[in-house]
Amino acid sequence: MKTIGIVGSGQLGWMMILEGRKLGLKFNVLGKAPGDPASRIADRYFSSGESEEFLKESDFVTYEFEHVDRNVLEQAEKEEKLAPPLLAVDLKMDRSREKDYLHSVGVPNARYRVAENPDEAFSIASDFEKAVIKQCFEGYDGKGQAVVSKGQFLTNSGINGKCVVEEFIDYDFEASIICYRDRHGDIGFYTPSLNYNSHGMLVYNECPVHDYGMSSIATTLLTSLNYVGVMGIEFFIKDGKPLVNEISPRVHNSGHHTLMGSSISQFEQHIRIMADLPVSKPELYAPSGIVNLVGSVKDQLVEKILQMGNTTAYIYGKSERRRRKLGHINVVAPTFEELHKKIAEIKEMLYGNNLDSEFMP
Amino acid sequence: MKTIGIVGSGQLGWMMILEGRKLGLKFNVLGKAPGDPASRIADRYFSSGESEEFLKESDFVTYEFEHVDRNVLEQAEKEEKLAPPLLAVDLKMDRSREKDYLHSVGVPNARYRVAENPDEAFSIASDFEKAVIKQCFEGYDGKGQAVVSKGQFLTNSGINGKCVVEEFIDYDFEASIICYRDRHGDIGFYTPSLNYNSHGMLVYNECPVHDYGMSSIATTLLTSLNYVGVMGIEFFIKDGKPLVNEISPRVHNSGHHTLMGSSISQFEQHIRIMADLPVSKPELYAPSGIVNLVGSVKDQLVEKILQMGNTTAYIYGKSERRRRKLGHINVVAPTFEELHKKIAEIKEMLYGNNLDSEFMP
Repeated sequence: MKTIGIVGSGQLGWMMILEGRKLGLKFNVLGKAPGDPASRIADRYFSSGESEEFLKESDFVTYEFEHVDRNVLEQAEKEEKLAPPLLAVDLKMDRSREKDYLHSVGVPNARYRVAENPDEAFSIASDFEKAVIKQCFEGYDGKGQAVVSKGQFLTNSGINGKCVVEEFIDYDFEASIICYRDRHGDIGFYTPSLNYNSHGMLVYNECPVHDYGMSSIATTLLTSLNYVGVMGIEFFIKDGKPLVNEISPRVHNSGHHTLMGSSISQFEQHIRIMADLPVSKPELYAPSGIVNLVGSVKDQLVEKILQMGNTTAYIYGKSERRRRKLGHINVVAPTFEELHKKIAEIKEMLYGNNLDSEFMP
Repeated sequence: MKTIGIVGSGQLGWMMILEGRKLGLKFNVLGKAPGDPASRIADRYFSSGESEEFLKESDFVTYEFEHVDRNVLEQAEKEEKLAPPLLAVDLKMDRSREKDYLHSVGVPNARYRVAENPDEAFSIASDFEKAVIKQCFEGYDGKGQAVVSKGQFLTNSGINGKCVVEEFIDYDFEASIICYRDRHGDIGFYTPSLNYNSHGMLVYNECPVHDYGMSSIATTLLTSLNYVGVMGIEFFIKDGKPLVNEISPRVHNSGHHTLMGSSISQFEQHIRIMADLPVSKPELYAPSGIVNLVGSVKDQLVEKILQMGNTTAYIYGKSERRRRKLGHINVVAPTFEELHKKIAEIKEMLYGNNLDSEFMP
């Protein structure tokens, strides 16, 4: 029986185990705490001090989050156990490296410049009509960002250290594609989804949307990175053209809809690739989407949502905290219009008029 | 967080946990061994001596197999924690009670008589043109059965004690329906499947088939039993008419196809009912079926089957043994014809010409 080692103990690892266990695999988790979602259901939990033993006891190593101990991933790569490759993680550890990489392989993305500190960033931002400043390190889910227009901060969630200053894209909507490359170089895609974010966090998404060239960009990135595993790529769509916003070298929140109404989830696909089992070309059986449960779970509302039918709930078992992703609702409907209506209804039930303030950093 | 207690530690409990955990529930297992499929992934495992603690620590109690310690189920029912009801289990503990019950509620089933011992059974069987003798206790998966024609044994896997003698039905095919009744009396059905059994064990099944009145019979049984949970009902179909063969007061092997190509699996549905969460009317997205992995797993063949696409594998992690169910393959196809072809191919890969001998008791 092969053992997959997952670095990180959050909900993405939890869903990898929920979806991958059927294949007759064992799961080790190197995590923060034994009570974390993935730690709780692992075959074996390892604390951060036990990384050597974790690597020894795992046939393959993957990660569910890019902000983890790099030394462990580096050692796993040396032992030829790691996927996706360390290079992909390194791009995520410094936003400027990610932008430089996108630029170097020629995929469309917003114009940018790198600044050594917030002051320099502000000065550069003032040269743009409108710009977004993103700190290079430890910035995710909308943390460490600011918007500057005509020399004025419009928003500022607090920025530190080295920054990337990007031209503000007045996009028509955000979209993403979940793609994958297996150990033999074969590439595949899930149908892209339209994503609605608030303050840098995903609120809901809806699938399908048109490809807009996203799968072609995905192929470029998967190939150039010599990637192995599932990857999420986020885009801004403007006048029917895609600009890469960022890559996620792992399963992605905007791919959770593949858990219902698809022939294979992004989690099972990723685990199959990790274990060197054959991938399965995903089929979308029906329009599907998700709504995130952020900040609190609200059991009574979840029950009401389940009563709607063609919905299910993933409750990660994390304690409640402002802006924390605690679960998500899966929704399927016979048409995209009905899906959109149903998701709007669920969003209204969960957040009413408070969405903007509940997602604000 | 509600806790579901499962009595029994086999693959059915394992899949209840795999599919139910997403809902934010905890799972206790009262099992035979800590290494059993459901025990391995339970939040907490209890050995048979710890049944009091198991009941105390579980909000709801269900079972994954009817041949378990009746005292535990009886106590759970006294504490108003048990579903499905004890009555349904009692029918399964004695085949003559099951037949008497089917007769008493007026659902069509094969003519039968009860015999106190194998000799009496053989004598009664000789009165029928052709008859099946089934021992009343501990008979399942084709164990404890014999076929008698014109005063001669055609087959005999060894029969003991009290028996039911049933008229042999020269059926056109076998079929089953997975149905459910929730805690508020609402009833629903999955699309029925055609089942192919060998020596009393399921080899493969294919969904959909016509209803043939199976859902109406299911309604009668669910209502009369005041049933709560998922139930499988097996039928013989002869000239387009259904005869109940037997009921299974639990999730059922012929419902495993609901794990792929359906909007909700029988396992999630059962667990939702246990936890008093709303049920979801199942939708069949595409023709789907399974092939059982019996006796040995054959990793290389499973890999080949995964390579076909639109397939997945459930490997229960049990040691190999003749006639033991060790896993199953899920298959989905765009048309029933393609499904049938694909399943035939998989069956051929796994069993070739040895199917009959590999399934023989």
